[in-house]
Amino acid sequence: MAWRAAIMGATGAVGQEFLKVLQERRFPLASLKLLASGRSAGKKLPFAGEELPVEELTASSFRGVELVLASAGGSISKKFAPAAVAAGAVVVDNTSAFRMVDGVPLVVPEVNPQDIKLHKGIIANPNCSTIVMNVPVWPLHKAVAIRRIVVSTYQAVSGAGAWGMWELTEQMKAFAAGEPIRKNKFPHPIVDNIFSHNSAIADNGYNEEENKMVNETRKIFHCAELLVTATCVRVPVMRAHSEAINLQFTAPVSEQQAREILSEAAGVRIVDDRASNHFPMPLEASGQDDVLVGRIRQDISQPDGCGIDMFVCGDQIRKGAALNAVQIAEML
Amino acid sequence: MAWRAAIMGATGAVGQEFLKVLQERRFPLASLKLLASGRSAGKKLPFAGEELPVEELTASSFRGVELVLASAGGSISKKFAPAAVAAGAVVVDNTSAFRMVDGVPLVVPEVNPQDIKLHKGIIANPNCSTIVMNVPVWPLHKAVAIRRIVVSTYQAVSGAGAWGMWELTEQMKAFAAGEPIRKNKFPHPIVDNIFSHNSAIADNGYNEEENKMVNETRKIFHCAELLVTATCVRVPVMRAHSEAINLQFTAPVSEQQAREILSEAAGVRIVDDRASNHFPMPLEASGQDDVLVGRIRQDISQPDGCGIDMFVCGDQIRKGAALNAVQIAEML
Repeated sequence: MAWRAAIMGATGAVGQEFLKVLQERRFPLASLKLLASGRSAGKKLPFAGEELPVEELTASSFRGVELVLASAGGSISKKFAPAAVAAGAVVVDNTSAFRMVDGVPLVVPEVNPQDIKLHKGIIANPNCSTIVMNVPVWPLHKAVAIRRIVVSTYQAVSGAGAWGMWELTEQMKAFAAGEPIRKNKFPHPIVDNIFSHNSAIADNGYNEEENKMVNETRKIFHCAELLVTATCVRVPVMRAHSEAINLQFTAPVSEQQAREILSEAAGVRIVDDRASNHFPMPLEASGQDDVLVGRIRQDISQPDGCGIDMFVCGDQIRKGAALNAVQIAEML
Repeated sequence: MAWRAAIMGATGAVGQEFLKVLQERRFPLASLKLLASGRSAGKKLPFAGEELPVEELTASSFRGVELVLASAGGSISKKFAPAAVAAGAVVVDNTSAFRMVDGVPLVVPEVNPQDIKLHKGIIANPNCSTIVMNVPVWPLHKAVAIRRIVVSTYQAVSGAGAWGMWELTEQMKAFAAGEPIRKNKFPHPIVDNIFSHNSAIADNGYNEEENKMVNETRKIFHCAELLVTATCVRVPVMRAHSEAINLQFTAPVSEQQAREILSEAAGVRIVDDRASNHFPMPLEASGQDDVLVGRIRQDISQPDGCGIDMFVCGDQIRKGAALNAVQIAEML
């Protein structure tokens, strides 16, 4: 079977990665439509040796389309995904629009592939930092139930879109030249700086990114009682998110046990060389399918032996977005 | 009273900051000797309108010296601090050489100033990330005892010394020019990257920086049973360390209560504007005496109300090193 597919938001950072991942994985395509806003219409994008035209996204774009990979922003998905479903397509949506909607599966293929078949036209792809955390935490949780997660993120600018990488690059050039740093879309300078994630703060004092990590993880793990607190921070890194993860299990878990579970886990690669101080880094996670995991150690602040600390790093455009969505499509 | 003082390691990043802080605070000096390695001897450094010569540090450098501010590395302190004490001086040591030695006070002036008077010639200045954490955490602990701290750091390259700033600057220039990134002293590229703190990993799986945060905090707080876990990470920021701090208290603490305590705490400035997404950032903490504190919120992963999350940022050359040492000297 080959799909008649369309990409919504084809010119964005994730849209570009969709094209790359579909080619690399030889995803079975009968046809591929590239959809974007009117101002990108007419552009051509290379795909599998051809130049595909970008078409303007409209409600009638989905005639004959069976699969939509969507990453054009939440409001665009809210507006157009129902039209795509009405036209008979399955939408794998990378935006936050439908993630927490009851009845819409929210899927990390390594965690809850069984939820895919419950879809009613839309399958949601989780937030990038949620995916990067869930891939290594799930196999541990499956072995011994986790009570509580404390996570701090070090998030790349590409999480904000292609413009984030442009803005950091421009600011690095200005810094190197000794010129004033000009802000553009980020609320604060990102070169030579870090700042609390640039999403709105909700009533509970957490920003949207943090609340996504909390609520999406509970939904994906089917574990409403899982306790999670997150602090999300933007760092001057182009690509790949890092996370310091502290786990409190409901029973003792040894460092050795955690290491064994992770060494056999799908989508995980251990990078944990204490002698040479070599651990997961964004530079090495970029462009990789796997989430890198290291600094695996017994948490000395949990004397009951129920604690594990680790540091993980994953390409948030790839596994955190495009790859995860294509993996879902492959399972359809 | 005016001190006959000497700076050990006058040409380093912290040594330079000593000169700045002594001038700004009009520290009472009868004389000031600048000591450094032989290869810096003969240099002149500006101080209070004069040019002071740098002298080579030897065992006989301390004749007539009453106060030594030391920041020339642990092995130098181990070698020369006893000579300084024998010559009658008090040494405020910014290295790790004596911090955990029984009988040597380890002091954050906002936390345990009473320990200063117990000195026998040497007073240790804590590690920079310890100080940045202790200043805001102590007033909370004093109000309601803390059971456990989970901290993740975002540490500037200046923590490694002046060469760290040089290395990041060179790598930023190369990145901006599209040239290959050359490593020098850091084990990994630091531009467009983050990495686990470049200190050795101890037997317990924690690196030296993390073990310092754990053990020094217990000593400074006089609380051997305090549980602390830390993950220390280097980020491409010139100056000022940031830390995501999760606190578990022994009794409920409300967000409002935490905010009130912090608003009256010495050495703390609250930067916590949710509406404009303005929180502590290295760019704004650099050059400041206060530790900036924000993202103060009730930890939703502790349903008993005993948890507070916050994000802090402090200039680690200043409050994390030079200023803290000069404050100790002022209290002598």
